[in-house]
Amino acid sequence: MINKIYQGAKMDVDKKYFSNITSRERAIFEGAISMGALFHQFIGTPVNIDSAKSLEIAISKSLKLQPAIEDVEVRIDLEKLKEVNTEFDYVSLSGDMLNVKIISKIDNIMAIIKMEFIEELNYPLMYIEDIFDE
Amino acid sequence: MINKIYQGAKMDVDKKYFSNITSRERAIFEGAISMGALFHQFIGTPVNIDSAKSLEIAISKSLKLQPAIEDVEVRIDLEKLKEVNTEFDYVSLSGDMLNVKIISKIDNIMAIIKMEFIEELNYPLMYIEDIFDE
Amino acid sequence: MINKIYQGAKMDVDKKYFSNITSRERAIFEGAISMGALFHQFIGTPVNIDSAKSLEIAISKSLKLQPAIEDVEVRIDLEKLKEVNTEFDYVSLSGDMLNVKIISKIDNIMAIIKMEFIEELNYPLMYIEDIFDE
Amino acid sequence: MINKIYQGAKMDVDKKYFSNITSRERAIFEGAISMGALFHQFIGTPVNIDSAKSLEIAISKSLKLQPAIEDVEVRIDLEKLKEVNTEFDYVSLSGDMLNVKIISKIDNIMAIIKMEFIEELNYPLMYIEDIFDE
Repeated sequence: MINKIYQGAKMDVDKKYFSNITSRERAIFEGAISMGALFHQFIGTPVNIDSAKSLEIAISKSLKLQPAIEDVEVRIDLEKLKEVNTEFDYVSLSGDMLNVKIISKIDNIMAIIKMEFIEELNYPLMYIEDIFDE
Repeated sequence: MINKIYQGAKMDVDKKYFSNITSRERAIFEGAISMGALFHQFIGTPVNIDSAKSLEIAISKSLKLQPAIEDVEVRIDLEKLKEVNTEFDYVSLSGDMLNVKIISKIDNIMAIIKMEFIEELNYPLMYIEDIFDE
Repeated sequence: MINKIYQGAKMDVDKKYFSNITSRERAIFEGAISMGALFHQFIGTPVNIDSAKSLEIAISKSLKLQPAIEDVEVRIDLEKLKEVNTEFDYVSLSGDMLNVKIISKIDNIMAIIKMEFIEELNYPLMYIEDIFDE
Repeated sequence: MINKIYQGAKMDVDKKYFSNITSRERAIFEGAISMGALFHQFIGTPVNIDSAKSLEIAISKSLKLQPAIEDVEVRIDLEKLKEVNTEFDYVSLSGDMLNVKIISKIDNIMAIIKMEFIEELNYPLMYIEDIFDE
């Protein structure tokens, strides 16, 4: 049974646009889109210790709206916020402060996409932490 | 008496960088920066009726961190959200859904900056609703 | 033979973070990240017919820097620009004006990721146009 | 003589929305909006030495479209790009790499708005470099 994620769609989007890939590939595809989206939408946002929580919530709620996204966990590193703080008591959100987990699901396949800053690489690496058949 | 808004600053930022404009001009300057920032940071964010509130809060809390900003009121137009909704139950935040008021203050001068979508112009106009000496 | 895309990396990123997926899955992963990134980085940018070309070039050059991306073709719909034009001779870039093709490559697998606005869905759909072994 | 910057407007925007401020204040207002916009639109964009020029051009051309903006000079600091470079030969554009000058004009008043990273403050400061009657 195919689980239509575009339920209200007038056309059969899954059949027309996604029949060339497997459920596993599509879970990866949708999760990866949302991870790239998250980074480039919110990087630059003014943030400090007091506003971090509300930003984490808004990021999570907005990205969960995207196709096939089951859950989005966002953690802004408060220690980093303290370290890099400017004279003006806030900074622009940057990749080294973000730790994100996005869970995407297509049919019975769940993919857990991670983004974390790898100090050794000086880079916010996105990778697939796990992918499995429920 | 000069009210230093960059209180923790090692240098005297106000004296060094802002002594060429009046308090009134600076209130306009800082409020306008934050309005431009708000629009271009958050336009494109996935949003629907359920997530709008958390996004309004996060936008407000983040922009309030900027220099001289006293308050930020953000209203995402839920009627517009319903109207333009896609088959996938969310849209990208766009200028025609946003109604924003930013209040900036320098010394005793308060500026109320507005952004609202003007249908006749098909444009999210930013202007100064009011500016006064408290 | 494994084609290391992070060539200068001190650690073996491919082995450590990507050995749980196939080359085909990774081509999809990296292409999808870049598509999500592109949309959320540039939506909202002021654009008109005169500036569209320079924006297409900058978008393409910036996204081509991301891991595994071979090519990025961006087309901003000039007809749409004319249609939606405001009284002020420019608009904010939105999803319905964008047509993008991103080509990602891992080992000998090439993925062609598309984004196009589907009128019937009122949605800028991202999908895999083709994926093949060279 | 009032120089209408919204020339094609059906309504008299200047009279309706901007008659409560002077030409000097409005030059500050429009320039500041565009500076805030520039920062928050483009921060996060992937960039390296090879792509910096095309990004500078696109940023300049897009922001010049905004009301009252005469010129936009953008310089991405190539030395900084080299310094902070990652293992992957590109970085996300951040405030410490940007040096911007925006020239706004209302009637015969020109404002030169600057953004530059002030090391002592660890902050990309926006200020008015000069404002004068031509």
